[in-house]
Amino acid sequence: MSKDDQIAFESALFVRAAAVETQLRRILDARPLPSEIARPERLMAAMRHGVLNGGKRLRPFLVMESAALFSADNDAALRVAAALECVHCYSLIHDDLPAMDDDDLRRGQPTVHKAFDEATAILAGDALLTLAFDIIADEATALSAERRAALVLALARAAGAGGMVGGQMLDLEAERRRPDEAGIITLQAMKTGALIRFACEAGAIVGGAPPADRERLAEFGSAIGLAFQLADDLLDLTADAKQMGKATNKDAAAGKATLAALHGPDWARGQLHGLIDQAHGLLEPYGEQAELLKAAATFVAARNS
Amino acid sequence: MSKDDQIAFESALFVRAAAVETQLRRILDARPLPSEIARPERLMAAMRHGVLNGGKRLRPFLVMESAALFSADNDAALRVAAALECVHCYSLIHDDLPAMDDDDLRRGQPTVHKAFDEATAILAGDALLTLAFDIIADEATALSAERRAALVLALARAAGAGGMVGGQMLDLEAERRRPDEAGIITLQAMKTGALIRFACEAGAIVGGAPPADRERLAEFGSAIGLAFQLADDLLDLTADAKQMGKATNKDAAAGKATLAALHGPDWARGQLHGLIDQAHGLLEPYGEQAELLKAAATFVAARNS
Repeated sequence: MSKDDQIAFESALFVRAAAVETQLRRILDARPLPSEIARPERLMAAMRHGVLNGGKRLRPFLVMESAALFSADNDAALRVAAALECVHCYSLIHDDLPAMDDDDLRRGQPTVHKAFDEATAILAGDALLTLAFDIIADEATALSAERRAALVLALARAAGAGGMVGGQMLDLEAERRRPDEAGIITLQAMKTGALIRFACEAGAIVGGAPPADRERLAEFGSAIGLAFQLADDLLDLTADAKQMGKATNKDAAAGKATLAALHGPDWARGQLHGLIDQAHGLLEPYGEQAELLKAAATFVAARNS
Repeated sequence: MSKDDQIAFESALFVRAAAVETQLRRILDARPLPSEIARPERLMAAMRHGVLNGGKRLRPFLVMESAALFSADNDAALRVAAALECVHCYSLIHDDLPAMDDDDLRRGQPTVHKAFDEATAILAGDALLTLAFDIIADEATALSAERRAALVLALARAAGAGGMVGGQMLDLEAERRRPDEAGIITLQAMKTGALIRFACEAGAIVGGAPPADRERLAEFGSAIGLAFQLADDLLDLTADAKQMGKATNKDAAAGKATLAALHGPDWARGQLHGLIDQAHGLLEPYGEQAELLKAAATFVAARNS
């Protein structure tokens, strides 16, 4: 990615993140809706703590940019993007719990169960997951009922037992029994891949794209989901090699198998290049309109933090 | 309720429960769906453990009978009923966790975190909540996209921060700071009332009832939700009075305020009669078709276990 391309991409990511942040803040600061009874303040505070945390908002960016390819309504795309971020953040809140990864800090801040308590963190996660479906199904998401129902279904599949949550389960089991290569691929496709795939597919659904485009965007999402994970594993591996003795190799220390560890950093770099080429190729039909999405693929593969 | 009425009601409840059980089993035994990657067996086993537990299936019954008033498609109603039961069971799994009510047994069986482990129980609950929206939004629920989206929205509102999960939060806070009468009413309307209200409203949505009927069924649901809670509190109170010294008064022991405890058993019995009258009155327009729903209201108020 050239310096200019990188600046253009990072500016766009920043602008999108700010818009999503505003949307999320508006939703989480809202008074009880007509069909709600009351919103307990402590619960809402925990939800805000888990969501309004200065994340990069990569998944919302992918929704927005994919939707833009099909001239989708911007406000509708923004709401779907916000809903997806609620799902992502709920998964982080539950992952951080003592019974799961037991993390005290996230982005330099106390995790939700540390800032509040465990029960509140469980409920805040539950409420965010539920809220995501509320946001999408609401008529305020100015889409046909067909598109809202299709988005609910695709999100539920991506986030459920056959997607993200199932991937979490496989990840827990991987600590007890090291998976083989096929097992690692399945685990990663589910745990991190499914939601990134949904992000790109969702843009196509919001924009009412034909089935072939919807599938193309989903495949693009799968490719960058794989790249995202591989870059993460590679970073973990090489950071360790460079800073020998320092305990940065968290996954290896936890006995977790990754493809990068299995095949080595050179193989991983080669795979990453292949995935970026594949992702870029999938976007060819959309020409210049897809420049920022292409940059997102490059960014995901090149990230070093 | 006459002996004959009671037998008729209990037979109907049993028949409905068996149908819901079959539907739930079919869904939870299914292989990965086309848009899923894989369903981890341990996660599915935990979900089955939490759902296929011989419950009375009262909420599904209310969905089915409410739907029948509007000549709704039986299969569609059954799927929505199964989805609602997934939400109810997820809430029990998370409620039973050590960080929440810390219960080891439910219906004489180990709770999910006891039969499996805490992390698996958290994920099984998450997956069941997600699955509920999957079931409703799926085209296999043979309803128009409008009705599927309306059901998703109503369920999300009933189950989220402004409904059931919010009620759970208030219940946790009530242990630290005893709520006043208005606080107890809000807590109960959210924690147990919202989902029972949804059950009845959902039947009307499935059946494509006009807004006035949808509202009427929702009000019926609210009335029996209140009766359900009051009967529970009354049982707790009188069981304690009768069996002095035995630690059956669990709520009072935990320092929880209930309306029955606040105003006494006679007041509670009077309230219960008023709620049943109100519930029955709301069903008058539907004549004999509503007999089983009326019996459900009586059953809920009279239950002694």
